[in-house]
Amino acid sequence: MTDATSTTARSTQVQLVRRPQGWPDDADFRTVEVELPPLGDGEVRVANEFMSVDPYMRGRMNEGKSYIPPFALGETMTGGAVGRVVASRSDGLPVGTAVRHDLGWRDVAQGTASRFRPVQEVPGTSLSVHLGVLGMTGLTAFVGLTAIAGIEEGDTVFVSGAAGAVGSTAGQLARLLGAGRVIGSAGGPEKGRLLTERYGYDAAIDYKAGPVAEQLAQAAPDGVDLYFDNVGGDHLEAALGAMNRGGRAALCGAIVGYNAEEPVPGPRNMFRIITQGLTLKGFTLGDWAHLSGEFGEKMATWFAEGRINHDETVVDGIENAVDAFRSMMRGGNVGKMVVRVGG
Amino acid sequence: MTDATSTTARSTQVQLVRRPQGWPDDADFRTVEVELPPLGDGEVRVANEFMSVDPYMRGRMNEGKSYIPPFALGETMTGGAVGRVVASRSDGLPVGTAVRHDLGWRDVAQGTASRFRPVQEVPGTSLSVHLGVLGMTGLTAFVGLTAIAGIEEGDTVFVSGAAGAVGSTAGQLARLLGAGRVIGSAGGPEKGRLLTERYGYDAAIDYKAGPVAEQLAQAAPDGVDLYFDNVGGDHLEAALGAMNRGGRAALCGAIVGYNAEEPVPGPRNMFRIITQGLTLKGFTLGDWAHLSGEFGEKMATWFAEGRINHDETVVDGIENAVDAFRSMMRGGNVGKMVVRVGG
Repeated sequence: MTDATSTTARSTQVQLVRRPQGWPDDADFRTVEVELPPLGDGEVRVANEFMSVDPYMRGRMNEGKSYIPPFALGETMTGGAVGRVVASRSDGLPVGTAVRHDLGWRDVAQGTASRFRPVQEVPGTSLSVHLGVLGMTGLTAFVGLTAIAGIEEGDTVFVSGAAGAVGSTAGQLARLLGAGRVIGSAGGPEKGRLLTERYGYDAAIDYKAGPVAEQLAQAAPDGVDLYFDNVGGDHLEAALGAMNRGGRAALCGAIVGYNAEEPVPGPRNMFRIITQGLTLKGFTLGDWAHLSGEFGEKMATWFAEGRINHDETVVDGIENAVDAFRSMMRGGNVGKMVVRVGG
Repeated sequence: MTDATSTTARSTQVQLVRRPQGWPDDADFRTVEVELPPLGDGEVRVANEFMSVDPYMRGRMNEGKSYIPPFALGETMTGGAVGRVVASRSDGLPVGTAVRHDLGWRDVAQGTASRFRPVQEVPGTSLSVHLGVLGMTGLTAFVGLTAIAGIEEGDTVFVSGAAGAVGSTAGQLARLLGAGRVIGSAGGPEKGRLLTERYGYDAAIDYKAGPVAEQLAQAAPDGVDLYFDNVGGDHLEAALGAMNRGGRAALCGAIVGYNAEEPVPGPRNMFRIITQGLTLKGFTLGDWAHLSGEFGEKMATWFAEGRINHDETVVDGIENAVDAFRSMMRGGNVGKMVVRVGG
């Protein structure tokens, strides 16, 4: 039997070849098959099982400096992924180890062992949970509610994009962290039912059914203390209009603007930040990695106790990854959107 | 000689009779002369010397709940004022005491002694300084820089409305509190000169001369750490565009919107709050009165040491108070705008 570490391997990968204008187009991407070289010392080869598609990736498709560098044209994109070591020249990561890493957008990943972190397999659950509630998605919800918006016992919490990956976790976490009332916004009655039945929300707003501001005023008659924003636009404006004195907003995403060709104007009621003494704080996870230990322990316990529901929308095949990404940007997912790329 | 406490007195007062649509019109106000009754027990009568006109008053002219109740139609408006006790039935405030209080928009004020606070007279300075750097104006600048935006040694600070009452104080305070570089925006070259020559600014932006964002990028090549906003609109958008990671903004005023008949859209680059991890915090002084002791001590010392310049624009006569208010809203003042109503 040949030693897998000394052989090459084929990897199917998705590359960005043109910077999207507005909505990403098929022609902005290409799928290539590359040959991975034999493993170097200290390297591992990982067969990915799932890769993540996330809103922040849209920003990386643009030119220009942001908080993370843009994807390079003609190179394979990166992003969260989970898989299993299939060849190893690192004692720390033997063949068979389940790992999480950032070499997504490909079916086989390879590199220095330090790029891959072993994860605990949870019986009865696929590895993709480590891209969802036990991964960056869960950490995002946790950091936003705690370190950014300082959730307090009894807070009335409003979450936009509440049926999405982060939002579906944020509602449940808000409840576990002591919120008094949790209100979520999502598109359509089916998502609304999920919010109240599975994600810990007391009330659901269907933003497709009417103005968010009016629905929020009804759902939160005593106002909102904490707003977790995944959406921006009219949701942020509605939240500013509903927030109580001293209210706090964690700005996590602004999906309404990601594919806009013209800059989207901000809320027309910014003066409320002054008159209500509000705090708006934006964040990206890079600055908050030091909270992942605390988060990991708490979340693993809650998850094991069955106090957190984890839903995902799975798209099969790396050839459908770009479609999955676009669908996620349109709200086509419930819970975490992942692409099954093998396994 | 008749005891002044037992006589009536005439007071000229300005009342709001109609809620302004957009810019306040002469017909929105009326000036009346009322007869004040003899003093009750524990009351004092004060001859006002100066009254304050401030941007926040525009909000009180509107209907509807804000952080302070609206001015009532057909009643005399209120606001900061300083004067001297001319009749007293309160042992704590004998005739001749200099006081600060909120019964402005009139030349003679009268009421329970507890509404009036004695102030220290500063030799060579008129009482109006207690409406300016030693009063609410100075406290606003201090609270914004410290408690709200957490000024740090070496910060690059940007202040809009920098030649106005709060702004001219904020520049000087920022310098005293350790800022590394202080940039101010005001309208016109004359104000610009004042910023750099009198108010502690390193660089001045003339917002009438070109886009704020371009000028700010030049004036702050290494970005802005702290933004003190008196203006809103394009200034806030420019600041968001220039702010460094982890930057903090104190939102104090949004004068561009106060007289707008349609709501003014917010910044088109709100996403920067997320990608740069910015914090925007609004405030009104009502929540921060507990800092007035600390402020008062520090500011009195700095002022006595000649480390704070206090400029004011004085309009004579209560009959010109509405004009003074409108002029201030258009930036017709340098430093604090006050109306001399007597004395």
